[in-house]
Amino acid sequence: MSYYAPSIEKLIESFEKLPSIGSKTAARLAFYILDASEEETNEFIQSIQNAKKNLKYCSKCYNITDTDPCPICSNPARDQSTICVVEDVRDVVAMEKTHEFKGLYHVLHGSISPMNGVGPDDIKIKELLARLMDGTVKEVILATNPRVEGEATAMYLSKLIKPLGIKVTRIAHGIPVGGDLEYTDEVTLSRALEGRVQL
Amino acid sequence: MSYYAPSIEKLIESFEKLPSIGSKTAARLAFYILDASEEETNEFIQSIQNAKKNLKYCSKCYNITDTDPCPICSNPARDQSTICVVEDVRDVVAMEKTHEFKGLYHVLHGSISPMNGVGPDDIKIKELLARLMDGTVKEVILATNPRVEGEATAMYLSKLIKPLGIKVTRIAHGIPVGGDLEYTDEVTLSRALEGRVQL
Repeated sequence: MSYYAPSIEKLIESFEKLPSIGSKTAARLAFYILDASEEETNEFIQSIQNAKKNLKYCSKCYNITDTDPCPICSNPARDQSTICVVEDVRDVVAMEKTHEFKGLYHVLHGSISPMNGVGPDDIKIKELLARLMDGTVKEVILATNPRVEGEATAMYLSKLIKPLGIKVTRIAHGIPVGGDLEYTDEVTLSRALEGRVQL
Repeated sequence: MSYYAPSIEKLIESFEKLPSIGSKTAARLAFYILDASEEETNEFIQSIQNAKKNLKYCSKCYNITDTDPCPICSNPARDQSTICVVEDVRDVVAMEKTHEFKGLYHVLHGSISPMNGVGPDDIKIKELLARLMDGTVKEVILATNPRVEGEATAMYLSKLIKPLGIKVTRIAHGIPVGGDLEYTDEVTLSRALEGRVQL
């Protein structure tokens, strides 16, 4: 049974659907929105609508971006001969924060996981291979997560790419096994990058 | 410096403005919204817009409501002769959850706090007194928070209402049920002792 007015109840339920938001936080957020000015509320809604409208995948690296190609792909100062392959958009941000990597990225949008029904064709592998065909790329750094799926994906990619005569490296085990690239501190991630080994 | 596309960055910032949302949770929420379907996103935005549009204060008790008067004030089964005075809309919900109180409410929307520049005219005291004028109300229960401001407000209201010949009561202070005597602060324990009841 609910003790709130239906419109608040609905708003609280909306917030509860968001990840990591429990019922108490949801109520706090709902009342914050009720107390917010019209301007603040509109700004909040606008930022959601703009994000949904403007954001797309970069047609080269599949990072999420407002402009296509993305700022990294269209930056001539970046080393065009190195591609760092990651699973997720957030991993690009994690890598960028190290300030160590000056090449380009390729976002797979997942990892090979037969258990979850994700095969090689379900992630951006074809698109990666297409980028390697013109001979510009000399090294592919595999920065998939150090978990079963990420390792399997790295192995799979390594077997596909090495025959093309391109150097394939894997970021070093400096990342705690079972950890998450997104939440790795910059120093550890820098070390992992430095210590990458040829496969 | 930001590593996300501007539209995501803006969305993350919007979430960060919400209370109890840190930067990591904000990023998680932003990416959840990006992955959500158009329908889910619209539903979320709708619930915010509806809440802002439909919700108003009840013209009698100043609880927040979709309909005026609110469902409690317009329920003839509620005891019209008792008014429970609370500081905040959420306190009404807390009281309702006890299923013990069958009277009406009055929401002050704050408490007297000279330190924060909140005087008696800044909260719904005039409106409470107006409700007491027709002689229907026989008891006013002061359920303001047991803090300095809540106590001061209760004292102030008591002095105004008692001369009207209306019974004024204050909710009891004591040890919370399931609480531990050992870890109860002295003030609460003193109050619990003062308020002891014969068995």
